[in-house]
Amino acid sequence: MKRSGPHVPDPRLDLVLERVVDVPRELVWAAWTTPEHVLRWFTPAPWATVDCEIDLRPGGIFRTLSRSPEGVEFPNVACYLEVIENERLIWTTALRPGFRPSAPPSEENHGLRVTAVISFEPQGSGTRYTAIAIHGDEAERKRHDEMGFHDGWGTALDQLVALARELQTNLDSPKERR
Amino acid sequence: MKRSGPHVPDPRLDLVLERVVDVPRELVWAAWTTPEHVLRWFTPAPWATVDCEIDLRPGGIFRTLSRSPEGVEFPNVACYLEVIENERLIWTTALRPGFRPSAPPSEENHGLRVTAVISFEPQGSGTRYTAIAIHGDEAERKRHDEMGFHDGWGTALDQLVALARELQTNLDSPKERR
Repeated sequence: MKRSGPHVPDPRLDLVLERVVDVPRELVWAAWTTPEHVLRWFTPAPWATVDCEIDLRPGGIFRTLSRSPEGVEFPNVACYLEVIENERLIWTTALRPGFRPSAPPSEENHGLRVTAVISFEPQGSGTRYTAIAIHGDEAERKRHDEMGFHDGWGTALDQLVALARELQTNLDSPKERR
Repeated sequence: MKRSGPHVPDPRLDLVLERVVDVPRELVWAAWTTPEHVLRWFTPAPWATVDCEIDLRPGGIFRTLSRSPEGVEFPNVACYLEVIENERLIWTTALRPGFRPSAPPSEENHGLRVTAVISFEPQGSGTRYTAIAIHGDEAERKRHDEMGFHDGWGTALDQLVALARELQTNLDSPKERR
């Protein structure tokens, strides 16, 4: 199987979060691809991720359910496009599982159409983390920006790093897990 | 890289063309993946394919331009999702190249949202050819059906087989090509 090419963001249409974090990329990858880990970090507090389903292959499902402290629920269904272990993960909400096009926008479906390209590069003992959110037009990019992309994805990444440190501590001191 | 799973059509949402053709699958694959071949068969006559661009990898472009005898043009831009040589080709119009979501439907963009899964299996000296057109909802499946999916894709396949026979004759008798 060939891989997709480099993904160069278009500032007019895309949003980017790039940061170097001090946890190894294998743990960042694990946090993104293991349902019980995703529950711990994916939705910025005080909202929480209360359900997660992952079928980690092209065409497979990536489904999350977020819930506010008041009980408001926000489901998200995406389809994986590329899965390169420890290196790159791509999913899109423009397709449902099995590469089925998402239904046209309607009263029942206010979902954002976005493709996420998440890249993990080793940098010293840490990871250069890059998330590109790719949109179909400027209006959709603006809408995502106003929904709080940078704060939201940044806070979620803080939560991911806290979880990864905890996983790392457990790996470093296996006896303490008992 | 992992591959996508089996693609089982949903009769409510999908359209299927399945046929055994008497040309080897390597030639059917070549017809689908070589721009100068696509020009010869992709659009049912008397329309013609007058331009074709192919970047054969996930995220790469599959672009065609069809033209009627009167000069009416119909452009089509899709993005490859899976490329498994001689076996399976998947592309979608729900994404543009680079996995970018297609722009929301508008006056300028009447395009059908469809994912095509084209499978090639050897059967004797021929090929079991299966094309599944996957839609987001029943309305889109119906629209594609009424646009003439079966006649259109069937006639195009006839044209593909005629081309593949010609390629095969050239392969069998290389001297006659001169």
